[in-house]
Amino acid sequence: MNKLAQDKVNAISWQDGKLVLLDQRLLPSKVVYLWLDNVAAVTDAITDMAVRGAPAIGITAAYGVVIAARNRLSGAGNTWSASVKKGVLQDIELLAGARPTAVNLFWALARMKALIETLSKTDVETAEGNVVEILLNAATKIHREDVEANHIMGELGSDLIQQTCSVLTHCNAGSLATGGFGTALGVIRHAHGVGKIKHVYADETRPWLQGARLTAWEMAQEQIPVSLLVEGAAAYLLKQGDVQWVIVGADRIAANGDVANKIGTYGLAVLARHHQVKFMVVAPTSTIDMAITSGDEIEIENRPQSEVLSFSGARIAADGVGAWNPAFDITPASLIDVIVSEKGVIHQPDLEKLSSMMQGRVFPPFFS
Amino acid sequence: MNKLAQDKVNAISWQDGKLVLLDQRLLPSKVVYLWLDNVAAVTDAITDMAVRGAPAIGITAAYGVVIAARNRLSGAGNTWSASVKKGVLQDIELLAGARPTAVNLFWALARMKALIETLSKTDVETAEGNVVEILLNAATKIHREDVEANHIMGELGSDLIQQTCSVLTHCNAGSLATGGFGTALGVIRHAHGVGKIKHVYADETRPWLQGARLTAWEMAQEQIPVSLLVEGAAAYLLKQGDVQWVIVGADRIAANGDVANKIGTYGLAVLARHHQVKFMVVAPTSTIDMAITSGDEIEIENRPQSEVLSFSGARIAADGVGAWNPAFDITPASLIDVIVSEKGVIHQPDLEKLSSMMQGRVFPPFFS
Repeated sequence: MNKLAQDKVNAISWQDGKLVLLDQRLLPSKVVYLWLDNVAAVTDAITDMAVRGAPAIGITAAYGVVIAARNRLSGAGNTWSASVKKGVLQDIELLAGARPTAVNLFWALARMKALIETLSKTDVETAEGNVVEILLNAATKIHREDVEANHIMGELGSDLIQQTCSVLTHCNAGSLATGGFGTALGVIRHAHGVGKIKHVYADETRPWLQGARLTAWEMAQEQIPVSLLVEGAAAYLLKQGDVQWVIVGADRIAANGDVANKIGTYGLAVLARHHQVKFMVVAPTSTIDMAITSGDEIEIENRPQSEVLSFSGARIAADGVGAWNPAFDITPASLIDVIVSEKGVIHQPDLEKLSSMMQGRVFPPFFS
Repeated sequence: MNKLAQDKVNAISWQDGKLVLLDQRLLPSKVVYLWLDNVAAVTDAITDMAVRGAPAIGITAAYGVVIAARNRLSGAGNTWSASVKKGVLQDIELLAGARPTAVNLFWALARMKALIETLSKTDVETAEGNVVEILLNAATKIHREDVEANHIMGELGSDLIQQTCSVLTHCNAGSLATGGFGTALGVIRHAHGVGKIKHVYADETRPWLQGARLTAWEMAQEQIPVSLLVEGAAAYLLKQGDVQWVIVGADRIAANGDVANKIGTYGLAVLARHHQVKFMVVAPTSTIDMAITSGDEIEIENRPQSEVLSFSGARIAADGVGAWNPAFDITPASLIDVIVSEKGVIHQPDLEKLSSMMQGRVFPPFFS
């Protein structure tokens, strides 16, 4: 814990030909890095939530493709061939099956796959080093772009906060959930830096406690004043009038602006609207899935009942009892005041505004 | 656990001159009974939540007064005197300070105190056995009346459920929270008995997990189908359309119908209204405090931060982080569709209807 507190958070990195992931399941009590060198292990790390957060999952998967290519090449005399390519595409399918909801996973894999198709089309018999290098450059670019996007969103989102106030966030949309800096927490970090944040309230976020373990930890590291609360206390908190923004990330945004995010987000949006508190979603365009028309089409992952029924391996619930454990919910666009991406800010999101933003390159455009 | 599962739940009883409480902090993994014979221990049992639930706290306190009188008499030659009475009244003050929100505590103590004042007025030099007996009879009557009230409310509340549906409850308003049978769970038990309950959903209810540990256990014992969910999943559950009633207990009801109950209740009421799901509060008249005009006057207990930051003694949150831990919130009457007490059913509660019910004795009156 102390070591990590001194270091810069580096939840995902590429070192010595391996993907190095900070095992987020053990935070904040233990700092353990996983050194991954095969696709099955990368897939498991995503499925089992050693790494979580939509952008972080995408970046992890991109590095996973580098590992796939390197290993497939290694097993085939280091010569890029149709059969090596086929194997890599199989590995991509494996990675794609790791989790269903966050679109960044599929987005990053599609980007890597498109690059692989390019390699194929030029029919280059590239030496191992070159293919791996090309793919590693692409993965690194995805990683770097994500961090850059977060910094842009941090500024855009912060600009929306008119006066010094308290904010409420849910789950972890911070450095740990992204390539670095964070989406929702990027906005909060930036806003805190310019003196707009009085206090950060963080939902503990059951059942995984990402708020208690990750968000609170990120905030505490930077001396940003933070208090945890149980999800049940959010309505009463908003009633107090001190919180003026609820700021969250997203796992997938449909073309109409509906947002899939950590279970509990939808309820917060209903509560925010009831209390006339503004609701901001912060997510890079890699999270926006223009291929689906509404949130109804987003697959919601149901996770194991044991995540609710047990804690640290010990059963907390009565015997013979089951649990309903959806990992995400859908917040309809109508409850969202603003979506912030690296391409701009959309007030009262809808299909037209999202389409304009996704097509446009002018920066910073405001689609209000 | 097995032993308890076979026995009838008996969370509060008077045995061999002692108050016997099932230690609810250890359920469901351990069944431990506390045998209490002094007022300090009874007070601690309430403060530290070995016993919880508004009616159960009231009953416990009533038995506490019996213990107070017995011990004070024992230390004074078993003669009822002004100084013994003074000591007992001091003990009552101690018990009254155990927790601030549930009015049943003050209601039960006021009832016992009134009885003590009667003893004083008649200036009877009653022998120990008699005073203790009189007080024990009164405490037992409070206990018995609570169970009877729960059975009446169970039927009244069940009658409001028009068709077979699923219901959602929060915290534990069951046998364990009352003298027996339960308020909200009494309604659910009765409704299940007459075939109206498809499925019970129970919020796990952080930070104490009363839903996971107590409600789910009570339901499972009687083979009532139950699933736990984290509080964050409640909105998404209500969106599914299967749940037609949210049914909860209360810790205090103001004269205008505002309800103090376990933190998270207010948010559920907002969510229920948003999804056009009916919201039922079930509480005996001992929970109704006509002396206060609205929920604004109800003191909300703030509990230790450690309840949120730690689990089973192990820290779960990052170091250097605090928590905001109100134990209750206020649900305004405007969000409540119906209040059920043993004296009747009030639709769209307000001052006039509550006054009528509290004054009336006709049964079953419906104040709609």
